[in-house]
Amino acid sequence: MRYELYYWPSIQGRGEYVRLALEEAGADYADVARGKRGTAAMMRMMEAKSGTPPFAPPFLKAGKLVIGQTANILFYLGSRHGLAPKAEAGRLWVHQLQLTVTDFVAEIHDTHHPLGPSLYYEDQKAPAKKRTAEFWRERVPKYLGYFERLLQENGGAYLAGRRLTYADLSMFQLVEGLRYAFPKRLKAFERKIPGLVDLHDRVAARPNIKAYLASQRRIAFNEDGVFRLYRELDG
Amino acid sequence: MRYELYYWPSIQGRGEYVRLALEEAGADYADVARGKRGTAAMMRMMEAKSGTPPFAPPFLKAGKLVIGQTANILFYLGSRHGLAPKAEAGRLWVHQLQLTVTDFVAEIHDTHHPLGPSLYYEDQKAPAKKRTAEFWRERVPKYLGYFERLLQENGGAYLAGRRLTYADLSMFQLVEGLRYAFPKRLKAFERKIPGLVDLHDRVAARPNIKAYLASQRRIAFNEDGVFRLYRELDG
Repeated sequence: MRYELYYWPSIQGRGEYVRLALEEAGADYADVARGKRGTAAMMRMMEAKSGTPPFAPPFLKAGKLVIGQTANILFYLGSRHGLAPKAEAGRLWVHQLQLTVTDFVAEIHDTHHPLGPSLYYEDQKAPAKKRTAEFWRERVPKYLGYFERLLQENGGAYLAGRRLTYADLSMFQLVEGLRYAFPKRLKAFERKIPGLVDLHDRVAARPNIKAYLASQRRIAFNEDGVFRLYRELDG
Repeated sequence: MRYELYYWPSIQGRGEYVRLALEEAGADYADVARGKRGTAAMMRMMEAKSGTPPFAPPFLKAGKLVIGQTANILFYLGSRHGLAPKAEAGRLWVHQLQLTVTDFVAEIHDTHHPLGPSLYYEDQKAPAKKRTAEFWRERVPKYLGYFERLLQENGGAYLAGRRLTYADLSMFQLVEGLRYAFPKRLKAFERKIPGLVDLHDRVAARPNIKAYLASQRRIAFNEDGVFRLYRELDG
Protein backbone atom coordinates (compact mmCIF):
# COMPACT_ATOMS: atom_id res chain seq x y z
CA MET A 1 0.00 0.00 0.00
CA ARG A 2 1.25 3.44 -0.92
CA TYR A 3 0.54 5.88 1.89
CA GLU A 4 -0.35 9.49 1.24
CA LEU A 5 0.99 11.97 3.76
CA TYR A 6 -0.62 15.39 3.83
CA TYR A 7 1.30 18.20 5.49
CA TRP A 8 2.42 21.76 4.81
CA PRO A 9 4.98 21.53 2.02
CA SER A 10 7.59 24.01 3.23
CA ILE A 11 8.16 23.06 6.88
CA GLN A 12 9.17 20.08 8.99
CA GLY A 13 6.67 20.96 11.71
CA ARG A 14 4.53 18.26 13.25
CA GLY A 15 4.58 16.29 10.02
CA GLU A 16 8.27 15.53 10.48
CA TYR A 17 7.61 12.93 13.19
CA VAL A 18 5.52 11.03 10.65
CA ARG A 19 8.06 11.49 7.85
CA LEU A 20 10.82 10.07 10.07
CA ALA A 21 8.72 6.99 10.87
CA LEU A 22 7.82 6.40 7.22
CA GLU A 23 11.46 6.81 6.18
CA GLU A 24 12.87 4.54 8.90
CA ALA A 25 10.29 1.91 7.94
CA GLY A 26 11.17 2.20 4.28
CA ALA A 27 7.47 2.64 3.63
CA ASP A 28 6.13 3.62 0.24
CA TYR A 29 4.58 7.07 0.55
CA ALA A 30 3.83 10.27 -1.30
CA ASP A 31 4.31 13.61 0.46
CA VAL A 32 1.26 14.87 -1.37
CA ALA A 33 1.23 18.59 -0.61
CA ARG A 34 4.77 18.93 -1.96
CA GLY A 35 3.53 17.92 -5.38
CA LYS A 36 1.59 19.89 -7.96
CA ARG A 37 -1.78 21.08 -6.63
CA GLY A 38 -1.06 19.05 -3.51
CA THR A 39 -1.91 21.77 -1.02
CA ALA A 40 -5.27 22.32 -2.70
CA ALA A 41 -5.95 18.58 -2.45
CA MET A 42 -5.04 18.73 1.24
CA MET A 43 -7.45 21.59 1.89
CA ARG A 44 -10.25 19.76 0.09
CA MET A 45 -9.82 16.71 2.31
CA MET A 46 -10.09 18.87 5.42
CA GLU A 47 -13.33 20.33 4.11
CA ALA A 48 -14.88 16.96 3.23
CA LYS A 49 -18.55 16.68 4.19
CA SER A 50 -18.30 13.00 5.10
CA GLY A 51 -15.73 10.52 6.34
CA THR A 52 -13.18 11.65 8.91
CA PRO A 53 -12.06 15.17 7.96
CA PRO A 54 -9.08 16.20 10.10
CA PHE A 55 -8.93 19.45 12.05
CA ALA A 56 -5.41 20.17 10.80
CA PRO A 57 -2.46 18.59 9.01
CA PRO A 58 -0.64 16.26 9.26
CA PHE A 59 -2.90 13.44 8.22
CA LEU A 60 -2.28 10.15 6.50
CA LYS A 61 -4.33 8.37 3.91
CA ALA A 62 -3.87 4.63 4.34
CA GLY A 63 -6.16 2.81 1.95
CA LYS A 64 -9.64 3.92 2.92
CA LEU A 65 -8.57 5.39 6.24
CA VAL A 66 -7.81 9.07 6.72
CA ILE A 67 -5.99 9.44 10.04
CA GLY A 68 -5.22 12.77 11.68
CA GLN A 69 -3.19 13.90 14.70
CA THR A 70 0.55 13.12 14.65
CA ALA A 71 0.54 10.73 17.60
CA ASN A 72 -2.50 8.91 16.25
CA ILE A 73 -0.80 8.40 12.88
CA LEU A 74 2.31 7.05 14.61
CA PHE A 75 0.15 4.76 16.74
CA TYR A 76 -1.34 3.36 13.52
CA LEU A 77 2.01 3.02 11.73
CA GLY A 78 4.03 1.84 14.72
CA SER A 79 2.95 -1.74 15.15
CA ARG A 80 2.52 -2.25 11.40
CA HIS A 81 6.12 -1.34 10.64
CA GLY A 82 8.03 -2.68 13.62
CA LEU A 83 8.35 0.75 15.22
CA ALA A 84 6.28 -0.11 18.29
CA PRO A 85 5.61 -3.23 20.33
CA LYS A 86 2.74 -5.44 19.19
CA ALA A 87 1.35 -6.11 22.68
CA GLU A 88 -1.21 -3.63 24.01
CA ALA A 89 0.77 -2.59 27.11
CA GLY A 90 3.80 -1.68 25.03
CA ARG A 91 1.75 0.09 22.38
CA LEU A 92 0.03 2.23 25.00
CA TRP A 93 3.35 3.07 26.67
CA VAL A 94 5.06 4.21 23.47
CA HIS A 95 1.94 6.17 22.53
CA GLN A 96 1.95 7.80 25.96
CA LEU A 97 5.56 8.88 25.40
CA GLN A 98 4.63 10.32 22.01
CA LEU A 99 1.75 12.25 23.55
CA THR A 100 4.23 13.74 26.01
CA VAL A 101 6.38 14.71 23.03
CA THR A 102 3.25 16.34 21.56
CA ASP A 103 2.81 18.43 24.71
CA PHE A 104 6.46 19.45 24.62
CA VAL A 105 6.24 20.41 20.93
CA ALA A 106 3.26 22.66 21.69
CA GLU A 107 5.31 24.39 24.39
CA ILE A 108 8.26 24.76 22.03
CA HIS A 109 5.95 26.45 19.55
CA ASP A 110 4.62 28.74 22.28
CA THR A 111 8.11 30.11 22.97
CA HIS A 112 7.82 32.23 19.84
CA HIS A 113 4.01 32.49 19.85
CA PRO A 114 2.92 33.03 23.46
CA LEU A 115 0.05 35.31 22.45
CA GLY A 116 -1.37 32.75 20.07
CA PRO A 117 -0.77 31.13 16.70
CA SER A 118 -2.65 33.71 14.63
CA LEU A 119 -0.42 36.69 15.46
CA TYR A 120 2.99 37.35 13.95
CA TYR A 121 6.13 36.74 15.97
CA GLU A 122 7.11 40.36 15.37
CA ASP A 123 4.02 41.42 17.31
CA GLN A 124 4.87 39.34 20.37
CA LYS A 125 8.63 39.59 20.76
CA ALA A 126 8.65 40.80 24.35
CA PRO A 127 6.30 38.12 25.73
CA ALA A 128 8.18 35.55 23.61
CA LYS A 129 11.35 36.46 25.48
CA LYS A 130 9.66 35.93 28.84
CA ARG A 131 8.04 32.68 27.81
CA THR A 132 11.34 31.39 26.42
CA ALA A 133 13.15 32.19 29.66
CA GLU A 134 10.53 30.26 31.65
CA PHE A 135 10.66 27.46 29.08
CA TRP A 136 14.39 26.95 29.58
CA ARG A 137 14.29 27.45 33.32
CA GLU A 138 11.39 25.09 34.07
CA ARG A 139 10.05 23.17 31.13
CA VAL A 140 13.11 21.90 29.23
CA PRO A 141 14.69 20.42 32.39
CA LYS A 142 11.37 18.81 33.26
CA TYR A 143 10.63 17.28 29.84
CA LEU A 144 14.13 16.33 28.74
CA GLY A 145 15.02 15.25 32.28
CA TYR A 146 12.06 12.88 32.18
CA PHE A 147 13.05 11.36 28.85
CA GLU A 148 16.72 11.10 29.88
CA ARG A 149 15.71 9.31 33.06
CA LEU A 150 13.47 6.84 31.20
CA LEU A 151 16.24 6.16 28.71
CA GLN A 152 18.81 5.49 31.43
CA GLU A 153 16.44 3.32 33.43
CA ASN A 154 15.70 1.33 30.30
CA GLY A 155 19.40 0.56 29.76
CA GLY A 156 20.38 3.52 27.61
CA ALA A 157 19.73 2.10 24.15
CA TYR A 158 16.08 2.97 23.55
CA LEU A 159 13.36 4.84 25.35
CA ALA A 160 11.02 1.86 25.62
CA GLY A 161 11.58 -1.85 25.26
CA ARG A 162 14.53 -3.44 23.48
CA ARG A 163 14.06 -2.15 19.99
CA LEU A 164 13.84 1.20 18.28
CA THR A 165 10.37 2.78 18.36
CA TYR A 166 8.91 5.91 16.84
CA ALA A 167 9.42 7.59 20.23
CA ASP A 168 13.18 7.26 19.70
CA LEU A 169 12.85 8.89 16.28
CA SER A 170 10.99 11.74 17.97
CA MET A 171 13.82 12.16 20.49
CA PHE A 172 16.19 12.60 17.55
CA GLN A 173 13.95 15.31 16.15
CA LEU A 174 13.64 17.13 19.50
CA VAL A 175 17.41 17.28 19.99
CA GLU A 176 17.99 18.24 16.37
CA GLY A 177 15.32 20.93 16.48
CA LEU A 178 16.41 22.43 19.80
CA ARG A 179 19.98 22.52 18.48
CA TYR A 180 18.76 24.52 15.51
CA ALA A 181 16.49 26.91 17.40
CA PHE A 182 18.57 27.42 20.55
CA PRO A 183 22.18 26.59 19.67
CA LYS A 184 23.72 28.34 22.69
CA ARG A 185 21.13 27.27 25.23
CA LEU A 186 21.08 23.64 24.15
CA LYS A 187 24.86 23.42 24.01
CA ALA A 188 24.97 24.43 27.66
CA PHE A 189 22.23 21.96 28.50
CA GLU A 190 23.50 18.90 26.60
CA ARG A 191 25.74 17.70 29.42
CA LYS A 192 22.58 16.97 31.39
CA ILE A 193 21.18 14.69 28.71
CA PRO A 194 24.10 12.54 27.53
CA GLY A 195 21.82 9.59 26.85
CA LEU A 196 19.48 11.55 24.61
CA VAL A 197 22.40 13.08 22.69
CA ASP A 198 23.80 9.60 22.14
CA LEU A 199 20.38 8.34 21.04
CA HIS A 200 20.14 11.29 18.64
CA ASP A 201 23.48 10.35 17.10
CA ARG A 202 22.57 6.69 16.76
CA VAL A 203 19.26 7.52 15.09
CA ALA A 204 20.99 9.92 12.69
CA ALA A 205 23.40 7.14 11.70
CA ARG A 206 20.73 4.56 10.87
CA PRO A 207 20.94 3.86 7.12
CA ASN A 208 17.39 4.89 6.21
CA ILE A 209 17.45 8.00 8.38
CA LYS A 210 20.91 8.97 7.15
CA ALA A 211 19.79 8.66 3.55
CA TYR A 212 16.65 10.65 4.28
CA LEU A 213 18.49 13.49 6.02
CA ALA A 214 20.84 13.80 3.06
CA SER A 215 17.99 13.82 0.55
CA GLN A 216 15.79 16.56 -0.85
CA ARG A 217 12.88 14.98 0.99
CA ARG A 218 14.18 16.45 4.26
CA ILE A 219 13.08 20.07 4.36
CA ALA A 220 15.59 22.39 6.04
CA PHE A 221 14.63 24.02 9.34
CA ASN A 222 13.26 27.51 8.79
CA GLU A 223 11.40 30.29 10.57
CA ASP A 224 7.93 29.09 9.60
CA GLY A 225 8.12 25.82 11.51
CA VAL A 226 8.02 24.82 15.17
CA PHE A 227 11.78 25.18 15.72
CA ARG A 228 12.78 28.73 14.77
CA LEU A 229 16.14 30.38 15.13
CA TYR A 230 15.58 33.81 16.66
CA ARG A 231 18.91 34.91 18.11
CA GLU A 232 17.24 37.17 20.64
CA LEU A 233 15.54 34.13 22.19
CA ASP A 234 18.74 32.12 22.47
CA GLY A 235 19.84 33.93 25.62
CA MET B 1 -11.48 -4.76 38.24
CA ARG B 2 -11.36 -1.66 40.40
CA TYR B 3 -9.54 1.13 38.56
CA GLU B 4 -7.37 3.62 40.38
CA LEU B 5 -7.45 7.13 38.97
CA TYR B 6 -4.62 9.45 39.98
CA TYR B 7 -5.17 13.17 39.55
CA TRP B 8 -4.85 16.40 41.50
CA PRO B 9 -7.51 16.23 44.21
CA SER B 10 -8.85 19.79 44.14
CA ILE B 11 -9.47 20.47 40.45
CA GLN B 12 -11.40 19.06 37.51
CA GLY B 13 -8.55 19.77 35.09
CA ARG B 14 -7.54 17.17 32.55
CA GLY B 15 -8.60 14.39 34.90
CA GLU B 16 -12.24 15.35 34.47
CA TYR B 17 -12.46 13.81 30.99
CA VAL B 18 -11.47 10.50 32.54
CA ARG B 19 -13.83 10.90 35.50
CA LEU B 20 -16.74 11.54 33.13
CA ALA B 21 -15.96 8.38 31.17
CA LEU B 22 -15.64 6.25 34.31
CA GLU B 23 -18.89 7.67 35.67
CA GLU B 24 -20.87 7.21 32.46
CA ALA B 25 -19.58 3.64 32.24
CA GLY B 26 -20.57 2.96 35.84
CA ALA B 27 -17.04 1.67 36.33
CA ASP B 28 -15.68 0.79 39.75
CA TYR B 29 -12.89 3.24 40.53
CA ALA B 30 -11.09 5.04 43.31
CA ASP B 31 -10.10 8.69 42.87
CA VAL B 32 -6.94 7.94 44.80
CA ALA B 33 -5.40 11.36 45.38
CA ARG B 34 -8.61 12.58 47.01
CA GLY B 35 -8.12 10.03 49.77
CA LYS B 36 -5.76 10.07 52.74
CA ARG B 37 -2.11 10.21 51.67
CA GLY B 38 -3.33 9.85 48.09
CA THR B 39 -1.31 12.71 46.64
CA ALA B 40 1.88 11.28 48.15
CA ALA B 41 1.06 7.91 46.56
CA MET B 42 0.55 9.68 43.24
CA MET B 43 3.92 11.41 43.44
CA ARG B 44 5.64 8.12 44.29
CA MET B 45 4.23 6.46 41.20
CA MET B 46 5.54 9.28 39.02
CA GLU B 47 9.00 8.80 40.51
CA ALA B 48 9.03 5.02 40.04
CA LYS B 49 12.35 3.68 38.78
CA SER B 50 10.75 0.97 36.68
CA GLY B 51 7.54 0.27 34.85
CA THR B 52 5.83 3.12 33.03
CA PRO B 53 6.10 6.24 35.22
CA PRO B 54 3.91 9.02 33.78
CA PHE B 55 5.19 12.53 33.11
CA ALA B 56 2.15 14.08 34.78
CA PRO B 57 -1.32 13.26 36.11
CA PRO B 58 -3.87 12.07 35.21
CA PHE B 59 -2.96 8.42 35.03
CA LEU B 60 -4.95 5.26 35.53
CA LYS B 61 -3.95 2.03 37.19
CA ALA B 62 -5.81 -0.82 35.52
CA GLY B 63 -4.60 -4.10 36.96
CA LYS B 64 -0.89 -4.18 36.19
CA LEU B 65 -1.05 -1.35 33.67
CA VAL B 66 -0.28 2.26 34.56
CA ILE B 67 -1.56 4.44 31.72
CA GLY B 68 -0.84 8.15 31.41
CA GLN B 69 -2.06 10.95 29.12
CA THR B 70 -5.78 11.72 29.17
CA ALA B 71 -6.50 10.72 25.57
CA ASN B 72 -4.51 7.50 25.98
CA ILE B 73 -6.53 6.57 29.08
CA LEU B 74 -9.76 7.24 27.21
CA PHE B 75 -8.53 5.17 24.29
CA TYR B 76 -7.95 2.28 26.69
CA LEU B 77 -11.28 2.67 28.48
CA GLY B 78 -13.38 3.49 25.43
CA SER B 79 -13.75 0.16 23.70
CA ARG B 80 -13.83 -1.75 27.00
CA HIS B 81 -16.82 0.17 28.30
CA GLY B 82 -18.87 0.80 25.19
CA LEU B 83 -17.71 4.41 24.89
CA ALA B 84 -15.94 3.94 21.57
CA PRO B 85 -16.39 1.73 18.53
CA LYS B 86 -14.71 -1.66 18.61
CA ALA B 87 -13.43 -1.56 15.03
CA GLU B 88 -10.02 0.01 14.45
CA ALA B 89 -11.20 2.74 12.07
CA GLY B 90 -13.78 3.98 14.56
CA ARG B 91 -11.42 3.77 17.51
CA LEU B 92 -8.80 5.83 15.67
CA TRP B 93 -11.39 8.43 14.64
CA VAL B 94 -12.76 8.96 18.15
CA HIS B 95 -9.21 9.08 19.49
CA GLN B 96 -8.32 11.67 16.86
CA LEU B 97 -11.25 13.81 18.01
CA GLN B 98 -10.10 13.49 21.62
CA LEU B 99 -6.58 14.56 20.64
CA THR B 100 -8.09 17.64 19.03
CA VAL B 101 -9.91 18.27 22.32
CA THR B 102 -6.51 17.94 24.02
CA ASP B 103 -5.06 20.64 21.78
CA PHE B 104 -8.02 22.91 22.48
CA VAL B 105 -7.72 22.36 26.24
CA ALA B 106 -4.04 23.38 26.11
CA GLU B 107 -5.05 26.58 24.34
CA ILE B 108 -7.79 27.24 26.88
CA HIS B 109 -5.18 26.92 29.62
CA ASP B 110 -2.88 29.29 27.76
CA THR B 111 -5.49 32.06 27.85
CA HIS B 112 -4.63 32.66 31.50
CA HIS B 113 -1.03 31.40 31.30
CA PRO B 114 0.44 32.69 28.02
CA LEU B 115 3.90 33.16 29.53
CA GLY B 116 4.02 29.60 30.78
CA PRO B 117 2.60 27.28 33.41
CA SER B 118 5.21 28.02 36.10
CA LEU B 119 4.36 31.72 36.52
CA TYR B 120 1.37 33.10 38.41
CA TYR B 121 -1.59 34.50 36.54
CA GLU B 122 -1.13 37.76 38.44
CA ASP B 123 2.26 38.13 36.77
CA GLN B 124 0.89 37.74 33.24
CA LYS B 125 -2.43 39.57 33.23
CA ALA B 126 -1.70 41.86 30.29
CA PRO B 127 -0.51 39.12 27.91
CA ALA B 128 -3.40 36.95 29.14
CA LYS B 129 -5.80 39.60 27.94
CA LYS B 130 -4.21 39.66 24.50
CA ARG B 131 -4.07 35.89 24.21
CA THR B 132 -7.71 35.60 25.30
CA ALA B 133 -8.80 38.12 22.67
CA GLU B 134 -7.01 36.14 19.96
CA PHE B 135 -8.42 32.91 21.39
CA TRP B 136 -12.01 34.11 21.05
CA ARG B 137 -11.44 35.79 17.70
CA GLU B 138 -9.65 32.91 15.98
CA ARG B 139 -9.40 29.72 17.95
CA VAL B 140 -12.83 29.19 19.51
CA PRO B 141 -14.62 29.63 16.16
CA LYS B 142 -12.15 27.26 14.54
CA TYR B 143 -12.31 24.49 17.15
CA LEU B 144 -15.98 24.66 18.10
CA GLY B 145 -16.95 25.32 14.49
CA TYR B 146 -15.16 22.10 13.55
CA PHE B 147 -16.91 20.03 16.20
CA GLU B 148 -20.30 21.60 15.42
CA ARG B 149 -19.86 20.79 11.74
CA LEU B 150 -18.90 17.16 12.46
CA LEU B 151 -21.88 16.80 14.76
CA GLN B 152 -24.31 18.18 12.16
CA GLU B 153 -22.82 16.10 9.36
CA ASN B 154 -23.15 13.02 11.55
CA GLY B 155 -26.89 13.63 12.03
CA GLY B 156 -26.80 15.78 15.16
CA ALA B 157 -27.01 13.11 17.86
CA TYR B 158 -23.35 12.23 18.44
CA LEU B 159 -20.00 13.40 17.22
CA ALA B 160 -18.99 10.02 15.77
CA GLY B 161 -20.98 6.95 14.86
CA ARG B 162 -24.45 6.14 16.17
CA ARG B 163 -23.77 5.86 19.87
CA LEU B 164 -22.37 8.02 22.61
CA THR B 165 -18.56 8.04 22.82
CA TYR B 166 -16.11 9.61 25.22
CA ALA B 167 -15.67 12.41 22.68
CA ASP B 168 -19.30 13.42 23.33
CA LEU B 169 -18.62 13.49 27.07
CA SER B 170 -15.67 15.77 26.35
CA MET B 171 -17.93 18.11 24.35
CA PHE B 172 -20.16 18.40 27.42
CA GLN B 173 -17.12 19.35 29.51
CA LEU B 174 -15.89 21.93 26.99
CA VAL B 175 -19.26 23.72 26.85
CA GLU B 176 -19.67 23.49 30.63
CA GLY B 177 -16.17 24.79 31.26
CA LEU B 178 -16.33 27.64 28.76
CA ARG B 179 -19.67 28.67 30.27
CA TYR B 180 -17.99 28.86 33.65
CA ALA B 181 -14.83 30.66 32.56
CA PHE B 182 -16.30 32.98 29.94
CA PRO B 183 -20.02 33.40 30.74
CA LYS B 184 -20.50 36.53 28.64
CA ARG B 185 -18.37 35.50 25.70
CA LEU B 186 -19.83 32.01 25.45
CA LYS B 187 -23.39 33.24 25.78
CA ALA B 188 -22.83 35.43 22.72
CA PHE B 189 -21.22 32.53 20.87
CA GLU B 190 -23.72 29.77 21.69
CA ARG B 191 -26.06 30.60 18.80
CA LYS B 192 -23.29 29.44 16.47
CA ILE B 193 -23.08 26.01 18.07
CA PRO B 194 -26.69 24.90 18.64
CA GLY B 195 -25.80 21.26 18.10
CA LEU B 196 -23.05 21.25 20.70
CA VAL B 197 -25.27 23.01 23.23
CA ASP B 198 -27.97 20.41 22.64
CA LEU B 199 -25.39 17.62 22.99
CA HIS B 200 -24.19 19.20 26.22
CA ASP B 201 -27.74 19.17 27.59
CA ARG B 202 -28.38 15.58 26.57
CA VAL B 203 -25.13 14.40 28.17
CA ALA B 204 -25.95 16.29 31.38
CA ALA B 205 -29.32 14.52 31.52
CA ARG B 206 -27.95 10.98 31.21
CA PRO B 207 -28.66 9.17 34.47
CA ASN B 208 -25.07 8.34 35.43
CA ILE B 209 -23.76 11.77 34.50
CA LYS B 210 -26.65 13.53 36.22
CA ALA B 211 -26.01 11.58 39.42
CA TYR B 212 -22.29 12.30 39.18
CA LEU B 213 -22.75 16.03 38.68
CA ALA B 214 -25.02 16.18 41.74
CA SER B 215 -22.56 14.23 43.88
CA GLN B 216 -19.57 15.23 45.97
CA ARG B 217 -17.40 13.37 43.49
CA ARG B 218 -17.75 16.28 41.03
CA ILE B 219 -15.33 18.97 42.13
CA ALA B 220 -16.61 22.51 41.54
CA PHE B 221 -14.85 24.68 38.95
CA ASN B 222 -12.27 26.93 40.57
CA GLU B 223 -9.36 29.18 39.72
CA ASP B 224 -6.70 26.46 39.97
CA GLY B 225 -8.02 24.42 37.06
CA VAL B 226 -8.04 24.80 33.29
CA PHE B 227 -11.31 26.76 33.18
CA ARG B 228 -10.91 29.85 35.37
CA LEU B 229 -13.33 32.70 35.85
CA TYR B 230 -11.35 35.92 35.56
CA ARG B 231 -13.89 38.68 34.83
CA GLU B 232 -11.28 40.84 33.14
CA LEU B 233 -10.79 38.11 30.51
CA ASP B 234 -14.50 37.75 29.80
CA GLY B 235 -14.60 40.82 27.54
